[in-house]
This record gives sequence, structure tokens and C-alpha cells, in this order.
Amino acid sequence: MTACWLELPDDALFGVHNLPYGVFTTPDEPSRRRIGVAIGDYVLDAGAAAHATQALREVAAPLSAPALNPLLAAGRPVWTQVRAALIAWLTDADHRPAVEPCLLPRQDVALHLPFEVGDYVDFYSSEHHATNLGRLFRPGSEPLTPNWKHLPIGYHGRSGTVVVSGTPVIRPRGQRKAPDQDAPGFGPSRRLDIEAEVGFVVGAASPLGVPVPLDAFADHVFGVCLVNDWSARDLQAWEYVPLGPFLGKSFATSLAPWVVPLDALDHARTAPPARDVAPLPYLDDREDAEPWGLDLDLEVRLNGTVVSRPPFAGMYWTPAQQLAHMTVNGAGLRPGDLYASGTVSGPEHGTEGSLIELAWNGERPLNLPDGSTRTFLEDGDEVTVSATAPGPHGTRIGLGEVTGRVRPAGSAPLAPH
Amino acid sequence: MTACWLELPDDALFGVHNLPYGVFTTPDEPSRRRIGVAIGDYVLDAGAAAHATQALREVAAPLSAPALNPLLAAGRPVWTQVRAALIAWLTDADHRPAVEPCLLPRQDVALHLPFEVGDYVDFYSSEHHATNLGRLFRPGSEPLTPNWKHLPIGYHGRSGTVVVSGTPVIRPRGQRKAPDQDAPGFGPSRRLDIEAEVGFVVGAASPLGVPVPLDAFADHVFGVCLVNDWSARDLQAWEYVPLGPFLGKSFATSLAPWVVPLDALDHARTAPPARDVAPLPYLDDREDAEPWGLDLDLEVRLNGTVVSRPPFAGMYWTPAQQLAHMTVNGAGLRPGDLYASGTVSGPEHGTEGSLIELAWNGERPLNLPDGSTRTFLEDGDEVTVSATAPGPHGTRIGLGEVTGRVRPAGSAPLAPH
Repeated sequence: MTACWLELPDDALFGVHNLPYGVFTTPDEPSRRRIGVAIGDYVLDAGAAAHATQALREVAAPLSAPALNPLLAAGRPVWTQVRAALIAWLTDADHRPAVEPCLLPRQDVALHLPFEVGDYVDFYSSEHHATNLGRLFRPGSEPLTPNWKHLPIGYHGRSGTVVVSGTPVIRPRGQRKAPDQDAPGFGPSRRLDIEAEVGFVVGAASPLGVPVPLDAFADHVFGVCLVNDWSARDLQAWEYVPLGPFLGKSFATSLAPWVVPLDALDHARTAPPARDVAPLPYLDDREDAEPWGLDLDLEVRLNGTVVSRPPFAGMYWTPAQQLAHMTVNGAGLRPGDLYASGTVSGPEHGTEGSLIELAWNGERPLNLPDGSTRTFLEDGDEVTVSATAPGPHGTRIGLGEVTGRVRPAGSAPLAPH
Repeated sequence: MTACWLELPDDALFGVHNLPYGVFTTPDEPSRRRIGVAIGDYVLDAGAAAHATQALREVAAPLSAPALNPLLAAGRPVWTQVRAALIAWLTDADHRPAVEPCLLPRQDVALHLPFEVGDYVDFYSSEHHATNLGRLFRPGSEPLTPNWKHLPIGYHGRSGTVVVSGTPVIRPRGQRKAPDQDAPGFGPSRRLDIEAEVGFVVGAASPLGVPVPLDAFADHVFGVCLVNDWSARDLQAWEYVPLGPFLGKSFATSLAPWVVPLDALDHARTAPPARDVAPLPYLDDREDAEPWGLDLDLEVRLNGTVVSRPPFAGMYWTPAQQLAHMTVNGAGLRPGDLYASGTVSGPEHGTEGSLIELAWNGERPLNLPDGSTRTFLEDGDEVTVSATAPGPHGTRIGLGEVTGRVRPAGSAPLAPH
């Protein structure tokens, strides 16, 4: 691959091997949403570049939409064609005169939810996280439920409250009951937490009644996007038996503004952990030449201090297995469906993807540089999850970051997005 | 209210006091979706009627859309205005010449999903159903979990697999494990079931961070629609601990084609059952002058035979309480959000809303007139849920019906809807 005609440092996380997609507006035209592609410190106005280069209609049309959904719906052959066009525009000096005017400094644009979310599913696929949560939520029982190593456990979340990175998160109110209380009380959550996760963005639809097999993963999944699945542990603990998490999660789920295409993650593919239990055939990737483990390094910062470095490579279930499971009952897929990995937690302290694990249910508070400690989030706290992955020739690519600051319960409402 | 100029029998379920909304196409123009209103054996092409009567733009515009979402988004004042216009068109003889040509025999049109579903939430608000399921799923434990009388338990379902009445339901495959087996097997569900429910269709949006109080129910909910939440009990039993139902539900949820506006249900309002436990203030309707219990009579037919008559009036939690709970954490609402009551089951045998209750986990098979018996659904079975409600002057109004026939596992896929 040739180099970008823009001068980029060798360690640029948004280099020409990455090219993640997002949606932006400019201060001049705050209601005109456009598809942007991150390159260095710039965002490429992709629709304008397609126009300026007189791109083919199948490339230009999806890039000229106000959200990624038409591109998502177009399917893998178009994704390949669009990516090839973007690379050509940014590496071929002949294109430079037409394309360079379509670059905007990234600091000058506002970033929005990159696609309209269809269904949102959250999995629970880190063995370390599930073991930790099992110990904390069900003390005295086996931490992993008997089904855990037979299927990737998941549940549906609220797609209408998925918000873009930077959106403030209002502390939720709700019912919570301590084990020593007779009846629940009501008020602001006292145990507001994060979950650092990796989201997978479904592109090509599948009809009702047709499972998506393991080897069709890349035909349906367009790319990857960081997720923070904010969680009110006290609301969740009281409500979740028997039908699962509801209000403890549905107040907000934050999404990074950049969707990294699967093609950019070729060098991140890695073997998943050994399976202790033989998976049923529809989930069995043990003989696959190229299973879909991904070597992503996550980082969690709380008010600017790194508090965790969760390793995605250790996830027990891969995104291909999650997709195969989610559809094995015949559930159809729509462009814009989003599913998240579940909290990414590694085996060592300092690699957990949630505060309830990092601070062990309040028993092991985190020390911050300002001398304060944290067990759960306080009003005003800001949490940022970022990640990088191996790129070609020893480089790294970035997944950007998903950030959010906690506002007090009862803060002024947020406009619908 | 004056009578319709169409001659309707006194017991017409789709009389002028009802006027439910749906979406239809004609054989001539199978891809032109239009809003229809059921009246007698006809459907009124509402957009055409608005045009023919030179209706005000705020009435004509939402009725001329291809789905109900713009009408839903418009909010209660417009809903009132549109309903008044419809009643005038159908009762005022002066309008008859313009409006009558907009009536089509209902048997000649195809009905579609009446709105694009945003988030789909399923509650669990019949005490009899929850008690029955607790006995069957968790023998030896208290059937109601400790939270049940403190909050309306609910969870998010898959909105992308909500289908209109009449859509065949392909038997799902998946993992299931009998208690006496060591490991799960895989195959078609052997315990395919129904759940007869009442759905509530959200119209007016609410922003993130703003709970919807009990008394704002009618500002946000547009109307009511029957739901059959098909359930694979064997898949569900194996997967649902700890994060709730997933594949046991997500293969299909059927929706009736008609949304009955809340205004048509004035005569159905009734006091909900006495609360054993004092609800927290945000859920407390005990002092309300007009709580939102609804006296709807459901009927479940299996291959044409009535097998159950579930009474909605006995539901422990009302739809107003469900909405207040669903949003108390600040979760926003979007036009087209759908939430269902949970299975409607009464206290007596013959009033249960699911087969697992009616046939008590297979111990008490249902006898059908053809001499066959049922514990769960067999391939080819057809289930229809219908309902009526009190109207003015001793009349009744209909909610129509939601029907579906079971196809064998692996049947040809269904086109995306």
C-alpha cells in the first residue's frame, strides 16, 4: 500500500490503513449531516470527495447519505469498492487536487451517532467478567451459570438510548434495595458504573428464518465501534431476576463516533482462547483456519487517569460466534443492528472493564491522583474508553474513543438525537 | 355521537366509536402503503379521504404517510383533531359523496405492520401468569420473585422481528437441555408456545432524562394493539439465567394490524386490582381518580377452537404504571416504541394466556375437536388472539385479531418486511 499524500507521523492511529467512518456537521451547517472518514487530524468529507473525483454511482450514493445506514445495507462488495476508492483518493497524487479541499480539521467538526441503530444486543462473553460478576451478584453460587460455556449469553438493550460519545450521562433514578432492607427505596443510583465493550455493526440484512453461519460473519458485519454500556448496579441487582437487566442499563449506552471497517482489522485477527467445553457445531470455530478473535488493546480513563487496560484478545466467545448464536433461531438482521461484546475484562487486576470489578464492590477503592478515591462514579466524573489494534508493518490503528461525563440526577433533559 | 351513514349492524365491532388505524395495500398497487381506518367491513383510505374532503394540512399530512409513525409523532392534540375529522367524515351526510369512494372492502386489501417499531419492551404484569411460570420454571422456590409487587418487571425484545398478523412463524432451532441431561442438544424447539398480550403504542417522544409520570400516560400513548409473543420454552429455560430471555423470544413477535386509539377505550377503563404492597410514589395510582385498568376480553383460538378467554382487567400493573416505570430512569421514548403487557392470564383454568399454563407443562393436554391433543404447538397449527372491549351504550368495540401459523423448522425464509 502506498503512503498517504498527507504527511502523517509513523504512529498516526488514523492512518491510511484505518479509515474509520463517522458522521459530522460543521458549525456553518449544523443540521447537514455528512459522512466523514478520519485521516490524521482531519476528517474527509466523503460525499464531497466522491463528487470531486467523479466516483462511480455505487460509491458516491452511499457516501452522500446523512448516516451510514445505506452504506451498511449495501453489503460487502460495495464496502470493498468504497474502501478501495478512499485509499486511492488519499494515496494517489493525481487525486490530491480534487480531494484535498474536502479535508476539514477534525477539531472543527461535531461528530454524531454514525448510524441509526436497529436492534441493540449486549453479550457477556468475557469469562473473567462473568466470573467476577457472578461472585459479586450471586455470592455462594457457582459464579458461571451452567449455560455459560455452551452459548454466548446475551440480551436485548434499548437502541433508542444509544448516544454518541460526548453526550452527558444523567445519573438515573430508580428502585434499589440493599440486602439488609425489607423494601426497596427510590432515588439516584449510588452505584453508577461503566462497561468497556467493543461493538459490532451489522451491515447486510438477513431474512427471517435464515441463521448466519460462522463463516458468513464478514458478509454481514461492517465494522467495529467502541461502546460504554453505563450500568446502575443497584437498580440492576434489584430488578434483574428473572427477566434480566432493564432500567439498570436502558438510561444510556455511549457509542464511539468512528466505525472501523473490518478490513482495517486484518492484522488484529488472532486465535481465541482454548475452549474448555466443545461448542455445538454451529458455534464450533476450533477447526476454522481464521477464527475471529481480535487483538484489541482497550484503555479506560477516569478523569484522565488510566484505571484499566482490558485485553480483547482473551474474550471467550468471538463476534462471529455471537452473530451465529444471535441468528440461529432464525432472527433476521437489519442494517444498523448493533451488538456489543460484553464487558472486556482480563484476568489480572488493572485489566477489568468495570468499576465494580476494579474496586471489587467497593472493598478496594481506586486512588486517583487528586487524592480522591472511587468505588463507583461521582457526579462530574468523566470516563473515556479508547482502543488500538495492530496494523500492517508493526504500526497500530486506533478505534478512537467513547467518552461521557456524569451529570447529577434530575439535570436538564437532553434533546432527542 | 351520530350514526355512521354506512349501514352497520348494532353489534359491529368496527363501528364509528372504534376507528382503529392500520396500513394497507391493494392488489393493483402492492408497493404503495397507505393508512387505512377500519369501519364495518371496509377500510377507509384515510389519505384519500383527507384529500377528498380538503382536510386541514395537520390532519391530511400524517394520514398521507406510508406508516403511522408521523401520526404517532404528532401528539395528542393532533390525534384528537384527526379522530374528530374521521368521525365527521363517516357520520356527516354532507361528507358522504366525497368519502364513500374512499372505502374499500376490507377483504380486498393486504394489511401490513402499521408502524415502524422503535424499541420493543415486554412486561410480565399478570400475577397469575407470573405465579404459574414461577412454579413451572423454578419449582421449589417462591413463584413470585421478591421484586414482583414492587415494580412491573420487563425486558427489551427484538423489534426487528416484530411481524404483522398472518406472517407464518418458522419453528426456531436452538439449544435446549432437559434437567436430566448433562449437556445441551440442538434442534427444533419442542416446546413452542404463544403469549397472548396487549401492546401499547407510543406516540409522542420524550427526551432523555425526563421520566413520564403516571398522569402523562395519555399524552404519550397513542393506542392499543394485540400481540402474540411466540416463545420457545425449551430454548428460554436453558438460556435465561442470568440475563433474561433472548433466542427463546426473538424469532418472531406477531402484531395485530389494527391500532385502536386510546380515545376509543374510554368505556373500557376500570379500576385495577387492589395492591397488596404499597407502590412507591412514582407507581402509586391508588388515589388516582381514573387509573388505567382496562376491561378487555381476550380470546385465544387454536386451529379455530377457543382454548382460552384471558381477562385483561385483572392485570396487576397498568400500562400507565409500565410507562412510568420504563422511563423513571430517564430512558427516552420514540414514536413507534411498543410495549406489551406480558401474558394475560386469569385465575381460573381456561383463562391462561399461554399453552404452558393451559396444558400445565404437558401434564394436562388440551383436547381439540378433531380428537387430537396439544401440549405445545405442532407444525401447521394456527393460533389467533382476538379481543373486544366495552363501547358506548352497551355496545362493544373490537381490537381485531393477531394470527399466525407454525411452519416447520428450516422452512423457506421470509422476505424482510
